[in-house]
Amino acid sequence: MTSGLPRSLEHPLPAGLRDLLPEEAQSRRALAQRVQSRFAAFGYRLVTPPVFELADVVERGLGTLSSNDVLRFVEPESGEVCVLRPDMTPQIARIVATRLRDHAPPFRLAYEGTVVRRRIGRAKKHRQIPQVGVELCGVAGPEADLELLELAADVLREVGLERFTIDVSDAGIVRELLHGVAAEHAEDVTRALGRKDEAQLSELTEGLATRDALLALVRLHGGREALVEAVALLASTRAAEPAKRLLALFDAAVARGLSSHLTADAGEVRGFAYYTGTIFSIYAKGPGEPIGAGGRYDELLSRFGAPMPAIGLGLDLDALGWARKDAGMGESAPDGVVVVGAPDDPRLRMLRERSLVAVALSTRELATSYARSWRFAAVWDGTSLFDPVTNAPLGKSASVTSVDEAFLQTLAVLRSASRGD
Amino acid sequence: MTSGLPRSLEHPLPAGLRDLLPEEAQSRRALAQRVQSRFAAFGYRLVTPPVFELADVVERGLGTLSSNDVLRFVEPESGEVCVLRPDMTPQIARIVATRLRDHAPPFRLAYEGTVVRRRIGRAKKHRQIPQVGVELCGVAGPEADLELLELAADVLREVGLERFTIDVSDAGIVRELLHGVAAEHAEDVTRALGRKDEAQLSELTEGLATRDALLALVRLHGGREALVEAVALLASTRAAEPAKRLLALFDAAVARGLSSHLTADAGEVRGFAYYTGTIFSIYAKGPGEPIGAGGRYDELLSRFGAPMPAIGLGLDLDALGWARKDAGMGESAPDGVVVVGAPDDPRLRMLRERSLVAVALSTRELATSYARSWRFAAVWDGTSLFDPVTNAPLGKSASVTSVDEAFLQTLAVLRSASRGD
Repeated sequence: MTSGLPRSLEHPLPAGLRDLLPEEAQSRRALAQRVQSRFAAFGYRLVTPPVFELADVVERGLGTLSSNDVLRFVEPESGEVCVLRPDMTPQIARIVATRLRDHAPPFRLAYEGTVVRRRIGRAKKHRQIPQVGVELCGVAGPEADLELLELAADVLREVGLERFTIDVSDAGIVRELLHGVAAEHAEDVTRALGRKDEAQLSELTEGLATRDALLALVRLHGGREALVEAVALLASTRAAEPAKRLLALFDAAVARGLSSHLTADAGEVRGFAYYTGTIFSIYAKGPGEPIGAGGRYDELLSRFGAPMPAIGLGLDLDALGWARKDAGMGESAPDGVVVVGAPDDPRLRMLRERSLVAVALSTRELATSYARSWRFAAVWDGTSLFDPVTNAPLGKSASVTSVDEAFLQTLAVLRSASRGD
Repeated sequence: MTSGLPRSLEHPLPAGLRDLLPEEAQSRRALAQRVQSRFAAFGYRLVTPPVFELADVVERGLGTLSSNDVLRFVEPESGEVCVLRPDMTPQIARIVATRLRDHAPPFRLAYEGTVVRRRIGRAKKHRQIPQVGVELCGVAGPEADLELLELAADVLREVGLERFTIDVSDAGIVRELLHGVAAEHAEDVTRALGRKDEAQLSELTEGLATRDALLALVRLHGGREALVEAVALLASTRAAEPAKRLLALFDAAVARGLSSHLTADAGEVRGFAYYTGTIFSIYAKGPGEPIGAGGRYDELLSRFGAPMPAIGLGLDLDALGWARKDAGMGESAPDGVVVVGAPDDPRLRMLRERSLVAVALSTRELATSYARSWRFAAVWDGTSLFDPVTNAPLGKSASVTSVDEAFLQTLAVLRSASRGD
């Protein structure tokens, strides 16, 4: 350091953004691949939209985000206002409505990318969220909702999470109970409901015909019994249909084997103005926020000129990685071997041809310190293979002098350890 | 379409940007993974920098790009000028100089991401380039250069390209021959040299001591013999050292088995002001531009306070995909099976558990049209498995009624076809 400044300040990043260093970058990528492989197994086809878009396209489909969340900039050549996408759903909606329009429905599309959300207020930090997700467009009704719940559970099991909760709700319940209430007032009510603040809710709902129902919603969460009660309580309100729909979805999800992961909340208000039916959030221990969320937004595609029902699921890979770490996974094991030898040591090529990670350094000392620093699993000094941290010999035979079966077997063990992340 | 506008105009993209639809997105991702697996085998560790950065960090390490190529915007909260990265090398340099500084050298880092370059002049289009690459920092001299040439050839063979050319040069040759020439004049000379325009070069070099050498460079390209001639011709100039260095590198690369891919150009001028030694460009039939390029930039890291030698290699996945297509590869085969059945058909789960792609549609007609539209390999109507395009039966037995070995074997054939892309 020439300047004496702390390193982080010498070449600062925009507030809220960060680098992924090797271990994290590698385990993030492996995680994304595992998630995508399950999306693929369910028939979801990958699409890759560009990194920025014209503001009016993205803002047409913002969903639960406000336009304050969007990082805008003026494109210098055209003077057009562009945005770094705060969410990928509007881009997928645009693709469905334009270039894929002639395809046979339903549309099963998967995406992966970084979204950027502007943070205003005190923090003034952006959030950079690595998202993976799917959109299922062109199917109304419970089958599509179930498919996404099933897919979410499948993905989370596939990445090794055993304990997670999918909290299902229906945006129609609150929406219908607030039918006819002025937008600003409705906002206040949902905010109080979201905080489960009964005192304020009581005050705010004075005079509303649906007051009792809204007050009851505060406690209508938990398991199936909460939904049974909601159906009974809401039977004579406009929310009767969505309440019944939610109970039916819950039962169908149980029938599909999801019971150990399901909870329900009849009073969930997230995105009530945007979502049109089923909504869900996915929780696991570790991150203080959902690892994923989704919902039905049957009105979005019409904003792009292609009216059709649609439901989406998005996972936050940062939060998912955190949950896996909390469950004791996600630390990628060391891999590869540092050969003590010349850069053209023939062992390098032989190892790499077998897809093993291999580099060479000229002395045992350099090789060992390199292996520690960059998390290699083994050093091979020509006669033996040893662990760079403990110096303990690896492999079955004391002497390893060729890329033979015994050696490959040793590395296979190391590699399978590294895959078990 | 409600408006009657052409689809592409209804929801336009910023000029020069585009979407990848399923087939292309999938084959792009598979290609990136294959490239990264070879980077990994050579010991390169993945890092993932953020999608935008403060302008002064990126512009400090621009290399061969000009600051005109950079898409800048003002971050609305802080008022700081940020850029969408036009190249990932400055970001990697920043990471090496800061957060990885304590690691044992050399630094072998891999990256993958989209870069955005502004286009000025007539086209006024941006270019969005999907890049993968590596940087090798902390090793001077030919061994590092050779490692990158070897890695480039390994990667290209791994992705199935047999015919490609790595054109090597040394930025020091032109740089030394223009030593002491005013920057603007030097620019003019290199431009003429780059166009191999002997008439203009003759005019521009009048009075320069190195005139004869500069004029000779125009034809000093091809195979080893061109470099032998260059060494002789430049022996008494300041460029004697880089010329010898280039010939030695060429010979060493031949010794490593690269001869069938090597060409040389003693008069290459690309990035002569930035690169400090070996430079190379990689060509294959198809795209009208290099599929990759790289070079030694020993002065870059010092701009980030961590002086050390470094050499990089970057591949353009668009151009590489084009070259593979031109060579008859890269079309991903159809995959997966559409089951004629209910959404909870147990065959779906059985197929997906085996990592096969599976969806259900209720009738044979819907299933067939869906399978065609979304490029599925097979439709399974309960008693037989058939090709959705030809309606020809698939599999060994006429009747396929369970997820049995015969069926899995059939799909294995289909899957291996799809992997052979």
